[in-house]
Amino acid sequence: MEPPKKKRLGVQDRLYPMPVPLVVGAAGDEVDLLPVAWISISGAKPASVAMALRKTRRTLELIRETGEFTVNLPSAGLAREVDHCGLHSGRDSDKLAATRLTTQPSALVTPPIIVECPYNLECRVLTEVDNGQYVVVVGEIVETHADEDILDETGEKVDVELLDPLVYIAGTREYRRLGEKIADAFSVGHDIPARER
Amino acid sequence: MEPPKKKRLGVQDRLYPMPVPLVVGAAGDEVDLLPVAWISISGAKPASVAMALRKTRRTLELIRETGEFTVNLPSAGLAREVDHCGLHSGRDSDKLAATRLTTQPSALVTPPIIVECPYNLECRVLTEVDNGQYVVVVGEIVETHADEDILDETGEKVDVELLDPLVYIAGTREYRRLGEKIADAFSVGHDIPARER
Repeated sequence: MEPPKKKRLGVQDRLYPMPVPLVVGAAGDEVDLLPVAWISISGAKPASVAMALRKTRRTLELIRETGEFTVNLPSAGLAREVDHCGLHSGRDSDKLAATRLTTQPSALVTPPIIVECPYNLECRVLTEVDNGQYVVVVGEIVETHADEDILDETGEKVDVELLDPLVYIAGTREYRRLGEKIADAFSVGHDIPARER
Repeated sequence: MEPPKKKRLGVQDRLYPMPVPLVVGAAGDEVDLLPVAWISISGAKPASVAMALRKTRRTLELIRETGEFTVNLPSAGLAREVDHCGLHSGRDSDKLAATRLTTQPSALVTPPIIVECPYNLECRVLTEVDNGQYVVVVGEIVETHADEDILDETGEKVDVELLDPLVYIAGTREYRRLGEKIADAFSVGHDIPARER
């Protein structure tokens, strides 16, 4: 079979798919939040997240005041609210009031978690890496919360069907939901015999 | 309505969903690759990716030899091959031979791209951040390739339905595909009126 023909597209800042959690910073009476698609787990010991924030973001300023933030994963039903938080700046707009999203206190950090997001991480900043227009914030995950009704039968693991996470697609700028399961990881690859070097 | 009851789950290293590209390093005659779910875009100017690699990985050693790597996004049909690459170490196993994945030369960097993966990034290391058991590698994206048959009508943007990216779900350790479109981003949030502070 003829191999696919590849086209060079130049420099692009896209990976597929991306999560799109709401990241919350808070200091004094002020709480601000924004959707961050450029985020990933960045280590296991310590468990941490790395996320890229544009340096001009008000949420970043608040994160720097306390050294703490929360990461709140929305279900697909929250697309409008998440999108609203990306369209406005916390400098002049109260996104919580506009979206009617509500907060509850975190267990260990100052910024609250978002009640309507069924999965929440509490984080403390470990380091920042300057990256031009953006800064990469690495934060240790110090606590996790999940709505009881999205847990599987063990009561400890998230059932991703119940979480129904909102997914972001760059480029064409779409929100999607997750599709069906294809295979078990750390398992299906055993079908292929290893080849020694 | 009663708000959902949240349960504290302690420290967890999970976000949903995650991409699961094959990251390739090469030096001399040796090419090695592994799936990396802990990866994200990390900036726009310069465009870059940040990924967390366990310090013991052979692919990391190869990346350090050249300061270069490629990121290759598999379609859902490659779940077995991707999983195989995560189950074995390049130290004693030839994953390309085993999976029958093939390579073609990159445009600008030494490590090749994976032909069967329809979307490919060429990257040069900008910096490394020590993060305990893992290292966070930040790499500038210097070129992008896509199979012509996954591009939309503009010929410049990836049609994510055609890409059909493989998705990784942590915790329950599943591969999934992407689901249906819900809404346009940077758009649907305009339905909610802003509220001044």
